[in-house]
Amino acid sequence: MPIIDPTKVPLKTGSIYPEPYASMMKGRSSLRLGEAGGLTQYGVNLVMLEPGAMSSLRHWHHNEDEFVWVVEGECTLVQDEGETVMRPGDSAAFPAGNPNGHHFLNRTDKVAKFLVVGTKAPTETAVYSDVDMMVHMTPGLSGKAHFTHKDGSDWTGPR
Amino acid sequence: MPIIDPTKVPLKTGSIYPEPYASMMKGRSSLRLGEAGGLTQYGVNLVMLEPGAMSSLRHWHHNEDEFVWVVEGECTLVQDEGETVMRPGDSAAFPAGNPNGHHFLNRTDKVAKFLVVGTKAPTETAVYSDVDMMVHMTPGLSGKAHFTHKDGSDWTGPR
Repeated sequence: MPIIDPTKVPLKTGSIYPEPYASMMKGRSSLRLGEAGGLTQYGVNLVMLEPGAMSSLRHWHHNEDEFVWVVEGECTLVQDEGETVMRPGDSAAFPAGNPNGHHFLNRTDKVAKFLVVGTKAPTETAVYSDVDMMVHMTPGLSGKAHFTHKDGSDWTGPR
Repeated sequence: MPIIDPTKVPLKTGSIYPEPYASMMKGRSSLRLGEAGGLTQYGVNLVMLEPGAMSSLRHWHHNEDEFVWVVEGECTLVQDEGETVMRPGDSAAFPAGNPNGHHFLNRTDKVAKFLVVGTKAPTETAVYSDVDMMVHMTPGLSGKAHFTHKDGSDWTGPR
């Protein structure tokens, strides 16, 4: 059956970020719906943000298109130009290679949820707008994330 | 701005199908949200079905993953096993190459809406489960759709 039973999709919590950024992702969780349904060409995740939580560090993708559709509550989109509140039925697109970093904050006292779609590119680099960090994903590293500073040196902590 | 203003996205109506199938798509329209937002790696369309309308002929994709998220009303998913009613927040995934054809019907008296994501593969063949027809999309044909019978011969009408 192609219908996805969300009660059978494992709730993903935590973060692949090194500290101190991993701890900043507290209150964020997600269901990997696309993966649960057997999709391999792009991911579709339902992201849940508790009050005060953020979706990720502000970032942009070199190779992967990203699309967001708000499902519940209010999500505040933050990008170079500032903040915009998005509500259920609002959507946003972040084409690969556009260096205007984005993330979503829940500034309300209720849970907020959005659906996010992202291509599964063979290799990917994401750049974090507000900190000196990038992440490199390559199949050669078995899909593992390799964090560096923006000068390409191994990440050793905030600087 | 990455936020998509749906009032500025052209409403797509009609069908690329040859008759008599094009007329069967009456009451279906869509907004190409991903394209409006500059995405090229996959499409994200908000599909609207008037009462009695269908999303497409029942079909499956050779090369493209497909994902559906119901936004409003009730959508009846039809596939080999039969029918399943899907409601807002329900989702379904159709991995590329799985020959279990699907489409969505609106059997209610209210509008139904769903979000559909589909990879933009370099070449694609979609097979229509219930009629003797296939469609081939290739960049060499400038993105045009080429309809054939299932034996590969040019499509000349229902048989």
